[in-house]
Amino acid sequence: MANGARPSVNQQIWLCARPSGIPRAKDFAIRTAPLPACGDGQFIIHNEYLSVDPAMRGWIADKSTYWPRIEIGDTMRAFSVGEVIESRNSRFTIGDKVMGIFGWQIYAAVNEAQVMRKVLEHDLPLSASLGVLGLNGLTAYFGLLDVCRPKAGDTVVVSTAAGAVGSAVGQIAKLKGCRTVGVTGGAEKVRQCLEEFGYDSAIDYKATDDLDTALKKACPDGIDCYFDNTSGPIHDAVLRQLRLHARIAICGTASYASWDPWNQGPRPERHLLVKRAAMQGFLTTDFAARYEEAIADLARWIRSGKLKYREDLLTGIEAAPGSIEILYGGGNRGKLVIRL
Amino acid sequence: MANGARPSVNQQIWLCARPSGIPRAKDFAIRTAPLPACGDGQFIIHNEYLSVDPAMRGWIADKSTYWPRIEIGDTMRAFSVGEVIESRNSRFTIGDKVMGIFGWQIYAAVNEAQVMRKVLEHDLPLSASLGVLGLNGLTAYFGLLDVCRPKAGDTVVVSTAAGAVGSAVGQIAKLKGCRTVGVTGGAEKVRQCLEEFGYDSAIDYKATDDLDTALKKACPDGIDCYFDNTSGPIHDAVLRQLRLHARIAICGTASYASWDPWNQGPRPERHLLVKRAAMQGFLTTDFAARYEEAIADLARWIRSGKLKYREDLLTGIEAAPGSIEILYGGGNRGKLVIRL
Repeated sequence: MANGARPSVNQQIWLCARPSGIPRAKDFAIRTAPLPACGDGQFIIHNEYLSVDPAMRGWIADKSTYWPRIEIGDTMRAFSVGEVIESRNSRFTIGDKVMGIFGWQIYAAVNEAQVMRKVLEHDLPLSASLGVLGLNGLTAYFGLLDVCRPKAGDTVVVSTAAGAVGSAVGQIAKLKGCRTVGVTGGAEKVRQCLEEFGYDSAIDYKATDDLDTALKKACPDGIDCYFDNTSGPIHDAVLRQLRLHARIAICGTASYASWDPWNQGPRPERHLLVKRAAMQGFLTTDFAARYEEAIADLARWIRSGKLKYREDLLTGIEAAPGSIEILYGGGNRGKLVIRL
Repeated sequence: MANGARPSVNQQIWLCARPSGIPRAKDFAIRTAPLPACGDGQFIIHNEYLSVDPAMRGWIADKSTYWPRIEIGDTMRAFSVGEVIESRNSRFTIGDKVMGIFGWQIYAAVNEAQVMRKVLEHDLPLSASLGVLGLNGLTAYFGLLDVCRPKAGDTVVVSTAAGAVGSAVGQIAKLKGCRTVGVTGGAEKVRQCLEEFGYDSAIDYKATDDLDTALKKACPDGIDCYFDNTSGPIHDAVLRQLRLHARIAICGTASYASWDPWNQGPRPERHLLVKRAAMQGFLTTDFAARYEEAIADLARWIRSGKLKYREDLLTGIEAAPGSIEILYGGGNRGKLVIRL
């Protein structure tokens, strides 16, 4: 599209109702708008791919955790990647491919602060910058390498192991010489873990009523590193199998739709004490100063065939309103992206 | 005693019944035994001070966590400090003062593996080697400096703040330029925290029914470091007040007499994630290679009057059987030590 005829008006997806649970198609509407004007220091992005991320639910929720919430009438906040087609900023040139928070829209007049990075990997698909070469890959990279700090020979357990983040964690751990065990839901995802993402073992938590025994079997020497995307019963079972000096990275709490009332569970303190283990939460954006170093590694691993990823493509901006529903319904098999 | 007349027989306190809860005087008995013979590579310690430690309860319990449990008929395992009076080991000379696991007895024939260290601080009271210059001080030192890693200006919260470990944590944090907040039980311990150990603020958790509000008032900018000796409701309240990048050292779980059934509580994962905080268990013995470095610092701070400590002395080996009961009854005000 970027190299074809350009639409002469902008199209935007905006929030028209505040959902109580998962945002659905009916909570959004599409509008046309004039092409945005390029202010001083700004540049115009023509979006090529829009991202669909689990975090969007939180951005829309009544009480947002990290970012200001999205108000009714706002164009939906989203990561996207596109091309600079006009610029009044000397650091951004027409033709640059740029990834950032540009919203669910065709055109965006943006400031430098909205940019996450310029895309440098012109030999790799541009859409990868929203997934394995974007926040998903970076989250896997820093959460595993900096928070879990695996050593060769370690046993690494990953929850949501077939997901956009989890699948990268498993493969990077494997690259570092670890034994990898994925926890995922459903036979098809187990197959994907074993055949596509190279896990040494994969557990279908939905098909077992004794996760402790399944983990013990998959990790006979105990667990050195746990990349936790879920919290909940998977987390609890992993903590009962830790090895001495284990490291746990808390990346997400997908098991729980809400923390009001606060979720309860078995206390981890005694496990952490007896095993001298560490448990740490992290946000990928805290590592912003090292994004390029990480993306250079990720790109190298992709080129050499050692880091595989999946994308599910939707087509056209009209697909955006229903896309969060698809994501939470688990209908996608890889990183969900909308191609404009 | 070491320089006076020496008893001509040994006396030992041995375990004569396995208590179901706190070990009491009636669970022990005293016996006389011949003076021990000094085997090859061994040396004879004449104990001068015996230690009374909370860990003893665990050593005696049916299921011991870290060490083999003590069997009925065994001389009670204990840290002690005394003088070498005979030696068949070239690294230990008659007159050396040595601290280690020599048991609740007057004389012990010991191997090098039982030694924790030779006492070098001859200008300081020998009994300090069982407390502030022994495991209590080392636990405070490594748990605070290596696990909590406080920076000047940080707010540091300590539970069991007036205890042998907690009081050292608070003072070392103060030495490092932190704001210190102690959580303790009872008005007298609050007074001790403020007047003797220099805490900036102290909370009597027994006298408040709203620990959250009390903590918020004492830590208006939130909590950077938490040295956790208790687990339980104090831990939970602290986690609700963490600052970004907070560090929690798990040192003990004194709130709970048992972990069978496992204790439940509010899940920490979401707090750790949102605050990018870390929670880590540690055992002082993991830092054995750095004991001398730490003790040199601790001794320097004691000499300069910046690190105060309290001891409660019992007298004579006959005091040992009832001493664990005193410790768990909270009747002591400082490190509990038996002078022989």
